[in-house]
Amino acid sequence: MLAISVHDGKVALEEDRPEPRPGEGEVLLAPRLAGICATDLEIVKGYMGFTGVLGHEFVATVVDGPPRLQGRRVVCDINCVCGNCSLCQSGLANHCRHRTVIGISGRDGCFAERIAVPEMNLYEVPDTLSDEEAVFAEPVAAAIQITRQFPVEPRMKVVVLGSGRLGSLVAQVLRTTGCRLELVGRNPDLLLFSEKKGIQTRLVGELVPRPEHDLVVDCTGDPQGIELAMQLVRPRGTIVLKSTFAEAVPINPAPLVINEVSVIGSRCGPLADAINLLARKQLDVRSLITRQLPLQRALEALAAAAEPRHMKVLIKIGQ
Amino acid sequence: MLAISVHDGKVALEEDRPEPRPGEGEVLLAPRLAGICATDLEIVKGYMGFTGVLGHEFVATVVDGPPRLQGRRVVCDINCVCGNCSLCQSGLANHCRHRTVIGISGRDGCFAERIAVPEMNLYEVPDTLSDEEAVFAEPVAAAIQITRQFPVEPRMKVVVLGSGRLGSLVAQVLRTTGCRLELVGRNPDLLLFSEKKGIQTRLVGELVPRPEHDLVVDCTGDPQGIELAMQLVRPRGTIVLKSTFAEAVPINPAPLVINEVSVIGSRCGPLADAINLLARKQLDVRSLITRQLPLQRALEALAAAAEPRHMKVLIKIGQ
Repeated sequence: MLAISVHDGKVALEEDRPEPRPGEGEVLLAPRLAGICATDLEIVKGYMGFTGVLGHEFVATVVDGPPRLQGRRVVCDINCVCGNCSLCQSGLANHCRHRTVIGISGRDGCFAERIAVPEMNLYEVPDTLSDEEAVFAEPVAAAIQITRQFPVEPRMKVVVLGSGRLGSLVAQVLRTTGCRLELVGRNPDLLLFSEKKGIQTRLVGELVPRPEHDLVVDCTGDPQGIELAMQLVRPRGTIVLKSTFAEAVPINPAPLVINEVSVIGSRCGPLADAINLLARKQLDVRSLITRQLPLQRALEALAAAAEPRHMKVLIKIGQ
Repeated sequence: MLAISVHDGKVALEEDRPEPRPGEGEVLLAPRLAGICATDLEIVKGYMGFTGVLGHEFVATVVDGPPRLQGRRVVCDINCVCGNCSLCQSGLANHCRHRTVIGISGRDGCFAERIAVPEMNLYEVPDTLSDEEAVFAEPVAAAIQITRQFPVEPRMKVVVLGSGRLGSLVAQVLRTTGCRLELVGRNPDLLLFSEKKGIQTRLVGELVPRPEHDLVVDCTGDPQGIELAMQLVRPRGTIVLKSTFAEAVPINPAPLVINEVSVIGSRCGPLADAINLLARKQLDVRSLITRQLPLQRALEALAAAAEPRHMKVLIKIGQ
């Protein structure tokens, strides 16, 4: 089969990769449409030391599984867990000590014509959701996770840092809470996407940082994001870190202590909630798609996704 | 009057410093006994760029104030606030935008024969508390603050990093919650103080770090403390930072995000609760006192407090 794989920090298009064979409890999927996110671009640069098929945001058709799922469109939780370790047993399965993560750690991803995944990871996609919407389920879930870790309330003052794909999605999701929201970024063209949705935006260069925000969400993928977040958060306020990158960042902990700030790392979220939010048409994700290329041209798609002018770049794989 | 003051990062014993004159809403106190904490030692090294009389942990007698307070023994909240700014009005007076902090920022401290403080900052000390106990009210309040920011429950697995004065106090306070507690430090002699109180201790060199703690409290005052805390906290667990120091620390945010860890800065706490806890004799603070010197020898006391073998060093000022 055709697949995009990473090996020793090099990404390549494989023409003849063997099809995966589902193990116990697994089903075989045919990915239909996949999304490229910043984590994919970090992995291509060597983050996580990953080897295997790239990709973890996708909507697929079940081609080999139990009869009730056969032929169904599904999205998939990326964390494949043991169910037995102390973390799984304590309700923190996403942090399973023995987990593999689709296209990120120890398990092949979705930029391929076939992928095998645990059946328990699947969520059926309702007919009212197009592939172009469903493919956003994973990043929307990641955005929703913020509100699971920190209850955002209507009158709170919230700022999202980062005008890219993640920041824009997070802003759309947080807007559903009724909070007083601003999206701050570097790229005026990308900020326009959110402005058109009625989200208040500001160029970072035009920002006068004041420590008055209840919540600052860093989606910049840039070490400087944390520094700016520290200037924007109010005493006893909260910073949520959504970005992952490989470098260590010099952080002065004194202001954290003096201002009693909380910093919360946030990763994957609830897919069922993401599907619901998308199905209720509370988000406009389609307008974030700036490019769509077939799997044969996935390397080109990856290059495009790395350009600041692109928002979401999709890879079309099958029907 | 006699006072220990800091100017341009130099500490000195002043023989003839003018007595402070209480402003509106202020009272004049005669400090009886004062404690030296790590923040004092950092200030002497230039932290906060402070100029004025040093010291913020103390028990004092009211010598010029309203009749109901005259002659009473008191302890004092160190944050002197405006009461009018948005933070004061929203219940975050400790973070008042216009605050001065006794002996730390913009206001003279307690290593002196007299100090003027706002009347609203005072808490009367019950007769059942000795000066040697009451002088711990401020650091005990700071330890209690941890439980205000993060509700510690009986079966939680908690580790306190730092065998010094703050770590030992924090361990004693957290033990009152019934959590499963361990104190980890570098100094075997100092760990003995806590062991004698029935607190489980471990030398950091004998620790095999496992990410299994619900709560890690860093009281090391050392950048490496945060690194160790990251190795000890479980996924979705919490690190509380109690240490302030001037340096920036390189922190890799990726594990914070991947493991969805919360990092909470924590500073001053509720003095009334500290007095109650001390009055109920739930803490043994007296055994932490390893040296007591008169104000005339306060420079010697500061030097002693900087030695790792000393736990709490007190300065005796008046009756």
